[in-house]
Amino acid sequence: MKEFLHTMIRVFDLEKSLAFYSMLGLKEVRRVQNEEYKFTLVFLKAPNSEALLELTYNWEQSKPYRTGRAFGHLAFSVENIYDYCAYLQSHNVTILRPPRDGYMAFIKSPDGISIELLQIGKRLVPMEPWASMKDTGTW
Amino acid sequence: MKEFLHTMIRVFDLEKSLAFYSMLGLKEVRRVQNEEYKFTLVFLKAPNSEALLELTYNWEQSKPYRTGRAFGHLAFSVENIYDYCAYLQSHNVTILRPPRDGYMAFIKSPDGISIELLQIGKRLVPMEPWASMKDTGTW
Repeated sequence: MKEFLHTMIRVFDLEKSLAFYSMLGLKEVRRVQNEEYKFTLVFLKAPNSEALLELTYNWEQSKPYRTGRAFGHLAFSVENIYDYCAYLQSHNVTILRPPRDGYMAFIKSPDGISIELLQIGKRLVPMEPWASMKDTGTW
Repeated sequence: MKEFLHTMIRVFDLEKSLAFYSMLGLKEVRRVQNEEYKFTLVFLKAPNSEALLELTYNWEQSKPYRTGRAFGHLAFSVENIYDYCAYLQSHNVTILRPPRDGYMAFIKSPDGISIELLQIGKRLVPMEPWASMKDTGTW
């Protein structure tokens, strides 16, 4: 074995998912359309990573995918977790687990995929409004 | 956003999972034990990758985790997909989707996590016993 190439997740609404992951800061690097089997694959890349996120969009999927528990989350580092979470809020993303500790936050994708955000380097000094913000739902 | 750090999956039997992923060629690079919340995290690394696989083992989990469909698979590259699949078979791993095309194979982890294996570089010339090997189950 050589490389961890990618993690694949299935998305119910491709446009909505591309808007979401693009807003997070991932860039599309490759796309495959298969007319015969009616699916589209979109590979997304974080700025400083080789490993990719692969989105599979089945054109004829009629209902959202079940999430299960065996898969946990995808984790990404961010330069300033407070600024990043404020940016996400300005795009109507609910911060399910706010970065009360100046280090870790959780959100969910449109398909209910849990996404962990981790502060690069040392945790930041606890700061409002984050320090006293309550959890929302599950992640 | 800077880096895609890791993908986290939950494992029901830590020893069995560590034996499986070690057999695949992943190496443990970090472990966190939390006595208060009774969980263990093990971070695994592929030789040529920065992004990690995180295993979460909850000590008191009483039954296997459901897999769902939103999460698809983890993909890894291998130097020679025929040799690699023969090696897996010698460790009693069923090749669910044999590399008939000299390029792609699928197996599953002990928790039913789908794992895609991809030949590095050009696909290999089709070769027996792989070329005529049937699929087994789902992946």
